[in-house]
Amino acid sequence: MERRQLHVPPRTIMTPGPVEVEPRVLQAMSNSILGQFDPSFTFIMNETMELLRDVLETKNHWAYPIDGTSRAGIEAMLCSVIEEGDKVLIPSFGRFGYLLTEIAERCGADVHFMSCAWGEVFDPEEVIKEIKKVRPKIVAIVHGDTSTGRLQPLKEIGFACRENDSLLIVDAVATVAGTEVKTDEWLIDGVITGTQKCISVPSGMAPLTYNDRIEKVILERKSIEKGIASKEQLGRNNTRRRIQSNYFDLSQLQDYWSPARLNHHTEATSMLYGLREGLSIILEEGLEQRFARHRLHENALVAGIKAMGLSLFGRADSKLPTVTCVNIPEGINGDAVRSMLLDEFGIEIASSFGPLHGKIWRIGTMGYSCQKRNVLLTLGAFEAVLLRHNARIHVGEGVQAALNVYKSVEKEEISI
Amino acid sequence: MERRQLHVPPRTIMTPGPVEVEPRVLQAMSNSILGQFDPSFTFIMNETMELLRDVLETKNHWAYPIDGTSRAGIEAMLCSVIEEGDKVLIPSFGRFGYLLTEIAERCGADVHFMSCAWGEVFDPEEVIKEIKKVRPKIVAIVHGDTSTGRLQPLKEIGFACRENDSLLIVDAVATVAGTEVKTDEWLIDGVITGTQKCISVPSGMAPLTYNDRIEKVILERKSIEKGIASKEQLGRNNTRRRIQSNYFDLSQLQDYWSPARLNHHTEATSMLYGLREGLSIILEEGLEQRFARHRLHENALVAGIKAMGLSLFGRADSKLPTVTCVNIPEGINGDAVRSMLLDEFGIEIASSFGPLHGKIWRIGTMGYSCQKRNVLLTLGAFEAVLLRHNARIHVGEGVQAALNVYKSVEKEEISI
Repeated sequence: MERRQLHVPPRTIMTPGPVEVEPRVLQAMSNSILGQFDPSFTFIMNETMELLRDVLETKNHWAYPIDGTSRAGIEAMLCSVIEEGDKVLIPSFGRFGYLLTEIAERCGADVHFMSCAWGEVFDPEEVIKEIKKVRPKIVAIVHGDTSTGRLQPLKEIGFACRENDSLLIVDAVATVAGTEVKTDEWLIDGVITGTQKCISVPSGMAPLTYNDRIEKVILERKSIEKGIASKEQLGRNNTRRRIQSNYFDLSQLQDYWSPARLNHHTEATSMLYGLREGLSIILEEGLEQRFARHRLHENALVAGIKAMGLSLFGRADSKLPTVTCVNIPEGINGDAVRSMLLDEFGIEIASSFGPLHGKIWRIGTMGYSCQKRNVLLTLGAFEAVLLRHNARIHVGEGVQAALNVYKSVEKEEISI
Repeated sequence: MERRQLHVPPRTIMTPGPVEVEPRVLQAMSNSILGQFDPSFTFIMNETMELLRDVLETKNHWAYPIDGTSRAGIEAMLCSVIEEGDKVLIPSFGRFGYLLTEIAERCGADVHFMSCAWGEVFDPEEVIKEIKKVRPKIVAIVHGDTSTGRLQPLKEIGFACRENDSLLIVDAVATVAGTEVKTDEWLIDGVITGTQKCISVPSGMAPLTYNDRIEKVILERKSIEKGIASKEQLGRNNTRRRIQSNYFDLSQLQDYWSPARLNHHTEATSMLYGLREGLSIILEEGLEQRFARHRLHENALVAGIKAMGLSLFGRADSKLPTVTCVNIPEGINGDAVRSMLLDEFGIEIASSFGPLHGKIWRIGTMGYSCQKRNVLLTLGAFEAVLLRHNARIHVGEGVQAALNVYKSVEKEEISI
C-alpha cells in the first residue's frame, strides 16, 4: 500500500450511526492534552457528569462515560451487576436484544429470553407477566432497536420491576438526546447510551448512569487493585463475588470518577472534551426542542419516502423516531442502491442485519445529521438512484412532500 | 456549578502519560465523520494496521487497536487467551505487574506470581527457571513499568517461552515508539500498547498485535453473535470455551478488522484518524532516530537532575529510558512541589503508586513531550520550586548541565 496523507471525503451520513458531528465538538477535541489528575481536567470530568445527569433526566449521582464504544457501556453495566446464575429476563425485539443476551450469558447469567417478531415491540403487559413468573434479578431491555427501527415503551415495565424488586437496565444507545428517555420518572435503574448517535459526538464513549439500587450490588462486589490498595483494603476485597472484568468494574470506575480519583485507566482526554461539548450543545438546544426537531425531520423524511411510493417496515405505532426503515422494492438490489448513493452522491444510508439484510434500508435522522438540508438532499439523490435502478416510483414527489412538511411548520417555533 | 465554556489551560506535560500530542494528530482528529463501512474508512483501518505492524516491528497479520485505554488492550489479550484454570506465570516488578495479575485472576487463571523489589528487574535466568518449573500456558510480563521506571530485558525470556511452548504476552504500553520493542525478533506472541505515551496520541486506544500461535487459541474459542450469525455459524459456536467478554473477544474483533467486516462495535472514528496520523509521524521520523531522540532528552534530563544534587531511584542498568524516577529529598513534600510546578508554571510531573507514593517523583520524556524546550523549562522551574521549598540543591547547575548535553551532540545527526 502506498503511503499517503489521511483522506476523509465529505459525506452526508443518514445512517443509525455513527452520524455527523457538530463542528464545535471537533473543535473542542482539538484542544491540547491535560493530565488526568490536573485540576483543570478533573473539573471537566465533574462538568461532564453534571451535564450528563441533565441529558439523562436523572438525579443519580453516578453518570459518567465508559471509555469504549456503546457495547462497552452495556458490558460494564451487565458484568458489574450480574453474578453467576443470576436470573436475567431479556425481552428482545431485534438484533440488540440478542446482544444483551450474548453479553449476559458471558457474565454467567441464567438468561430468560423472550422475543417478538422483528418489526414489532412488546405489549408491556406481556413483559410484566413474565417478570412476575420468572422473578428475575435483572430485566435488560433495549429502548430503541435500530436493527428494526422500533421503540419499546418502558414506563409500565419500570413500575413492574420496582414492584417485583427486579433491576431494570436499559440500552438507550439509539434514543438518548433524540427522543424522551426519562430515567428517573420511568424508574430505570441503569441506562447506557453511546456517543455516536443522537448525542452526535464521535464513536468511542458509552455514557451511563445508575442509581443506588445498582450501586448497592456493585459495592458488595468491590475490590481494589493490589498495586494501589493498602493492606486493610486488600483484606476487605471480596474476591469470591469479584466482578469478572477489571476494565468494566464499575466499583473501581466510580472511585476514579469520585473525589478520591483512585487511579484506574487514563481517561480518554480528547473524547471527554468532545463529549462535554456535545452534551452542552444538547442542553443549549433544550431537550424538548431537540426532540421536536427530531420528530419534524422524521416527518419530512417519511412524507418524502411515502410520496415516492415506497413503504415503511414495521408497525407505525412502535416506530423509532430516529430511524426510518424502508422496505426494499422487489427486484431492487438494496446494496447496489446504497453503494451508488455513497459513490456518486456522498450520501450514506444503512442496510440491516440477519434476516432483514436485503429486505430493508435504514435511514437515520440523528443529532447533527438530523437537519433539513440532509433530508432534502437525501430524498433527491435517493430518487435519482432508484430511477437508475429501474424502480417504479412516483418521480418528483418525494422532495416536494418533504418541502411541504417544512412549509407547514414555518410559522411554528421549531427551529429547523 | 455554573455553566461555562470548555477551558483547557496550556500545559507542559512531563509525566509518564498522557503526554502532549503533535498538532498534526489533533488536526487529523478534527476531520469529519465517515461511516464505519464506508470504503474510505475501511481503507483507513487497513492503513492503520499496516502502519502499526511497522511500528511494532512485526510481520504478524493481526495488528489493530482496541477501542479503550491501554488496560482495555491488556484485558482483551488476556481474556481471549486465558481459559479457566490455565497456568499463567507473572513476573512482576511494579504496579503494572499487579495489574496483569488482577486481570488474569478475573479471567480464571491459575496465577503463578513472582516478584522482585520495586526498583529492580529480573535476571532473565530467574524467570526462565520458573518457566521450566511451572510450565505455564502463558507468561505475562510488563516491558517497561512506569511505576518504578524500570525496563525488563525480554529477548532471552522470549526464546525460553518458545522452547517451553508457553505464550509470551507483553505489556509494552510505556515503551513502544520510545525504545526498542522487537516483537518478532524477541519471539513475543502478543504485544499490547497504548496511545497516550510514546505514540503521542490522546488516550483512548490500545493498539495490539498477536501471531498465529495466539490466533490458534482464539479461533478454538470463537463464537459469532446470535443477532448476526447464520444457523450454521451458531451451530459451530463453542459456548463451553467461549471468551468471557464480548467487547474484548479478539475472535470477533479480528473478523471486524478483516475483509469480512463482520459488525462488532462502531470503530472510534476520530481516535482512529488520530492513531493513523500518530503512527505515520513515528515512521516519518524513523524508529531508530526516534529512539535516539528519546535517549538524548533522557540524558539531558538526567544530567540536569544529578547536577542539582538530586539522586535517581532504582538501579541504573535497568532504567526505563522514557521515565526518570527522582528520589524526593528528605523533608520535602513531594505533592506540594508537584502542585506548585503545575499551578505556577503549568508544568506537570508525576508522583507514584503504593509504597513509592511520597518517595519518588516520576518525570516522563515521551513522544511529542520529549523535546529540548520541555526538558529545559522543566529543569528551570523544578529548581525554582525546590528552592521555594527550602531544598538543599546546587543552584543554577541543572539547566546548564542539560544545555551541555545538547551542546555535545550539536554536530551529531540527532534532530532535537
